[in-house]
Amino acid sequence: MDAKRRNRRGFLKGGAALVGMAAGGARLTKGQTQGTPAKKVDDLIAYGERSRFVTSIREPVAERHSPDEFGLTFHVLTPLQDSSGIITPSSLFYTATHRGAFVPDIDPRAHRLMIHGMVDRPLVFTMEELKRLPYVSRIHFIECLGNRARPTHKSVQETHGLTSCAEWTGVSLPLLLKEAGVQSGASWIVAEGAEEVKGDSSIPLAKAMDDCFVCYAMNGEPLRPQQGFPLRLMVPGFEGIYQIKYLRRIKVVDRYYMTYDDYGHINPDAKVAALTHMIGPKSVITFPSGGQQLSGPGFYEISGLAWSGSGAVRRVEISTDGGRGWKDAELRSPTLPMAHTRFGYHWKWDGKECVVMSRCTDELGTVQPTRAEVAKLWNKPLDENFRVPGNDNGVQPWRITTDGSVHNGLA
Amino acid sequence: MDAKRRNRRGFLKGGAALVGMAAGGARLTKGQTQGTPAKKVDDLIAYGERSRFVTSIREPVAERHSPDEFGLTFHVLTPLQDSSGIITPSSLFYTATHRGAFVPDIDPRAHRLMIHGMVDRPLVFTMEELKRLPYVSRIHFIECLGNRARPTHKSVQETHGLTSCAEWTGVSLPLLLKEAGVQSGASWIVAEGAEEVKGDSSIPLAKAMDDCFVCYAMNGEPLRPQQGFPLRLMVPGFEGIYQIKYLRRIKVVDRYYMTYDDYGHINPDAKVAALTHMIGPKSVITFPSGGQQLSGPGFYEISGLAWSGSGAVRRVEISTDGGRGWKDAELRSPTLPMAHTRFGYHWKWDGKECVVMSRCTDELGTVQPTRAEVAKLWNKPLDENFRVPGNDNGVQPWRITTDGSVHNGLA
Repeated sequence: MDAKRRNRRGFLKGGAALVGMAAGGARLTKGQTQGTPAKKVDDLIAYGERSRFVTSIREPVAERHSPDEFGLTFHVLTPLQDSSGIITPSSLFYTATHRGAFVPDIDPRAHRLMIHGMVDRPLVFTMEELKRLPYVSRIHFIECLGNRARPTHKSVQETHGLTSCAEWTGVSLPLLLKEAGVQSGASWIVAEGAEEVKGDSSIPLAKAMDDCFVCYAMNGEPLRPQQGFPLRLMVPGFEGIYQIKYLRRIKVVDRYYMTYDDYGHINPDAKVAALTHMIGPKSVITFPSGGQQLSGPGFYEISGLAWSGSGAVRRVEISTDGGRGWKDAELRSPTLPMAHTRFGYHWKWDGKECVVMSRCTDELGTVQPTRAEVAKLWNKPLDENFRVPGNDNGVQPWRITTDGSVHNGLA
Repeated sequence: MDAKRRNRRGFLKGGAALVGMAAGGARLTKGQTQGTPAKKVDDLIAYGERSRFVTSIREPVAERHSPDEFGLTFHVLTPLQDSSGIITPSSLFYTATHRGAFVPDIDPRAHRLMIHGMVDRPLVFTMEELKRLPYVSRIHFIECLGNRARPTHKSVQETHGLTSCAEWTGVSLPLLLKEAGVQSGASWIVAEGAEEVKGDSSIPLAKAMDDCFVCYAMNGEPLRPQQGFPLRLMVPGFEGIYQIKYLRRIKVVDRYYMTYDDYGHINPDAKVAALTHMIGPKSVITFPSGGQQLSGPGFYEISGLAWSGSGAVRRVEISTDGGRGWKDAELRSPTLPMAHTRFGYHWKWDGKECVVMSRCTDELGTVQPTRAEVAKLWNKPLDENFRVPGNDNGVQPWRITTDGSVHNGLA
């Protein structure tokens, strides 16, 4: 009798659970105790999560607390040592800003893009209007000019973590500028973001009319707030600071503007300023890299990333003897223009101390220089204080000691 | 005096804040009240999040509660109406399983892959061993055979949301099989996952030795649990059920195995079974699609996705008059084999009722059939109960009424 009653109660309970399921699909997860909110299952349906065994995270730049005491600077590094393929997950995409660490909380319905200055028809677009226009969808890297290896850096996250790569979708800037009607005599654009500190950058009109686009999506969903939600200017191959986040204004002008963003890292002479914008051919080995550990002599697949601001990567070479000999690596992903390219190289480690490094060649035939060549180019002594004022694309050496531990070869 | 004391206190507080920052980088966020835990900033650094204005989510399949009452079935649909480009964010990747809705919580250090059966050298790999091997990195779609439009479906999420596309990284299966030494007479492999209900599928050896790979990463990070963490078999172009999640075993055999996965949707005759595995050329317009709203007559960019299990998409055509006339769309993304391909088409809507549809042609020259042609192929009447037992790749019509609302053209 008691048992029957219990069964009946149990049945009714089950019935109630089914009703709840039909309404919202909510159910207890396996192992979940009764009374725990059922929200977890809805979350599981709505937007999946990574495994609890995956703990890869971005880290702040060591010399630069993020966010800083003023809430302006926020520099966090992509964990390249854990990367696969060429897509950086949006949640792990690097961020580098001096324009406010706490991202603007922009309602896309209120956001506008204005195109004005030396144009026949100044234009203002809502986000909805922009999304109605023809679009392009391309995979491009972004890299901060400050992405450079220093002897004190331990890992590839520290030496090279200010670059990431994503699929970007948006509207061709040439299309928008043609619609506005660029007037003769115009030679630059100034692009501005909506942060409290208005960040803006001057970009040559020739580049703006080539392959730039205003981008509202990355990796298949709207831009992330840390990447400029709801709108970002993409300037493929140029350094990160030109990829203006929270883009609200493009002014067509007839001269180079010295703006907040131009804090001494570019040439104030307009004739040659653009020459320093473009990211040189660069590559780095992500495995084995600083802080990693080889388990002993034997077969390893050397893996890494190569990229160039001038186009597609054509070739990557590997040295396992500190730069004396070089052999071709295999390109293991689509080789897309101004995109990270994954390379791999079969290697049998004999257990002796050695230095591994990579160098890449882009489709213009430009070869990534050694660190000594970079120093010579900038006419600076190659000591531990060496730091180039522009894009430092020197070859990165990793030293492997007999115990299998991997160290920064610059240290 | 009082003012001085306050200043001094203020200074000291500031000093303490700086000490805290140096240790962990944690700080109050703007607008955050004192006393709120500072964890938020660490989260912001570690792993970024989407904007609170972005609310796109997966939805359960309407006819199939997810998870079901037995905790076995979990079918959730990608919101294709909100998609951009070709990459599906891992959090929004579709899932379809009858093998357990609550994913195995696998510690990758304990996971093994065994290759055995008709091989000279049976092999067992740890995840670490697999990651040391040469790898490939490719962008491929996956589609569930059950991804089909029904007259009752309102949105493209419902009609086509059981397909998604990602970048996958892993080890070539031919390489592993060659290492094991496939014996003569072998003609199939059986691949098995580690779920409580052991899901396994038979795959022709010719396909296994062509372009399959065992995959440990998607979109630049380890596989998500709902996608098979830590290891999944990729069988490019074949229907979803062959892309075995939680892959733990590959047995080389000399016949087709009738397994748990083969619930009547494939041909029990081994000679022709493989013919139904491959996803046919297919495409769908994601804008404008069911449930969306045009704001009035004027310019619109018709946008959508095309894919084929047989290789790259070569051509997409658009009809805006219910299939009488067809014009070429532009391919707007890299056109990679067995990958989603984004297409776009400039269109000026005159405000009259109309039906828009897309059809694609793959690199073999196969053209996506109309729904009537699919019905004829399967020798079934084209009524509202029409449902093909295999891959339904018929053209999807969207009907736009004079008020700008968009409806399923099958209804």
